[in-house]
Amino acid sequence: MHRYVHGYSERETERLYDQSLILEEMLHSDTAYPAGSMVLEAGCGVGAQTVILARRSPQAEITAVDISLDSLRKASALIEREGIANVSFQQSDILNLPFGEESFDHVFICFVLEHFVWPLEVLIELKRVLREGGTVTVIEGDHGSCFWYPETAESLRVWQCLIEAQAHLGHNSLIGRQLYPLLRQSRFNIRYVLPRWIYVDAGNPGPMSDGVNKIMIPMLESAREQALKLGLIDEAAWRKGISDLRRFAESPGGTFFYTWFKAVALK
Amino acid sequence: MHRYVHGYSERETERLYDQSLILEEMLHSDTAYPAGSMVLEAGCGVGAQTVILARRSPQAEITAVDISLDSLRKASALIEREGIANVSFQQSDILNLPFGEESFDHVFICFVLEHFVWPLEVLIELKRVLREGGTVTVIEGDHGSCFWYPETAESLRVWQCLIEAQAHLGHNSLIGRQLYPLLRQSRFNIRYVLPRWIYVDAGNPGPMSDGVNKIMIPMLESAREQALKLGLIDEAAWRKGISDLRRFAESPGGTFFYTWFKAVALK
Repeated sequence: MHRYVHGYSERETERLYDQSLILEEMLHSDTAYPAGSMVLEAGCGVGAQTVILARRSPQAEITAVDISLDSLRKASALIEREGIANVSFQQSDILNLPFGEESFDHVFICFVLEHFVWPLEVLIELKRVLREGGTVTVIEGDHGSCFWYPETAESLRVWQCLIEAQAHLGHNSLIGRQLYPLLRQSRFNIRYVLPRWIYVDAGNPGPMSDGVNKIMIPMLESAREQALKLGLIDEAAWRKGISDLRRFAESPGGTFFYTWFKAVALK
Repeated sequence: MHRYVHGYSERETERLYDQSLILEEMLHSDTAYPAGSMVLEAGCGVGAQTVILARRSPQAEITAVDISLDSLRKASALIEREGIANVSFQQSDILNLPFGEESFDHVFICFVLEHFVWPLEVLIELKRVLREGGTVTVIEGDHGSCFWYPETAESLRVWQCLIEAQAHLGHNSLIGRQLYPLLRQSRFNIRYVLPRWIYVDAGNPGPMSDGVNKIMIPMLESAREQALKLGLIDEAAWRKGISDLRRFAESPGGTFFYTWFKAVALK
């Protein structure tokens, strides 16, 4: 099993589906592939983005790969449930794809590079299977971009634990800021790298509560055991941190900021 | 003399002018006041924003106040040099303005609240001199929003020193995230609070170099003495941090992110 900070629980699957719907407009509304084009989604996981991609490019042929057979089963069930017909799934390691050179017109990869020790190798392998002139679309978060108000020592610490637990695996949750150099090093022709940010305050209580309760806290909880096991925090501080976050999400003076980065580059 | 983290040097005046021109489009392009309206700029400093305001609202009557007579002289000289006729200056403490209730149609305040121990009191005083239905426009940065790549321990430390030196004065360079609660607590009717961000990478080497060399580093240098005096850092680490920042600004893989917040609210 690939080591992955968020694990593979049912709760985490739900978090990934909630998150993708909440963020769909902001992250994916400008991604659409032409009829007949061959698109690779590298690291589809439980299919949270796959379903969005497939709906937004209904005439493209999408091949979605992931290393986890269990995740692929969930992704496949979701796609079937949604009545989507233009996606096929394949188990594979994205560092060693079972496709020839230039097999795809476009490649899409979202929330994946952050979970690799050598993200550059992933990009180089994606480039191999991409045709000349085809695009790669990369979306990653940057946990170092996140801040909120009011903050407490424990809520900051809990967030820091997620970053550190991921770093302990050799992975990088601050990778958003590195998309430009990574794409440059893999010799892509960069069209753009841009922040896609979310700012919410109590003027928008719905998004505020959704962002914190459906994305942020479940994501943190997925790393809870590791953080405790690594001794990054104790139980009491963890509970206080999570409870502080829940409270700030309901606070009439609360605010929250986070940015992802989206990049499009040509081979 | 009001205690102020950046001081009142010539170099700092130049930094403020450079900064305002670089950021004009992003921060000020949607601020314009109608002909004949009475506008207060609270805390105009050396006039860096005043000149922009006056040009963008040429038919409005702008009153610009600041507590520093020296800054007002510089502001006044700048306005004269630019041939601008719709600004008058007055020395005053913005916690105790020499104007009656409802004297102004609109109030503008930019990069000022971060330098007050009780920013709420400033907003309440501004509200007093604003007419019912008039707007207040508030712009503030948030130094906690800033990140860059590649980062080094010393470059991070130097930036942290600026935040801490300002905090040592009781001031708050993380105030951007607090505009919503502050305006709410002072009972303004908030129209919006939104991030105004800058992301630069080596794909835009000009803005990258300008942002770091003309804004970030001069701003840091203005707090250098205090940081050293407070023992927040030693000379060698400071020099290394600044030199690392200069190098990352020229790096083909460098990236930089910062966000300000702009708010408009009604009385």
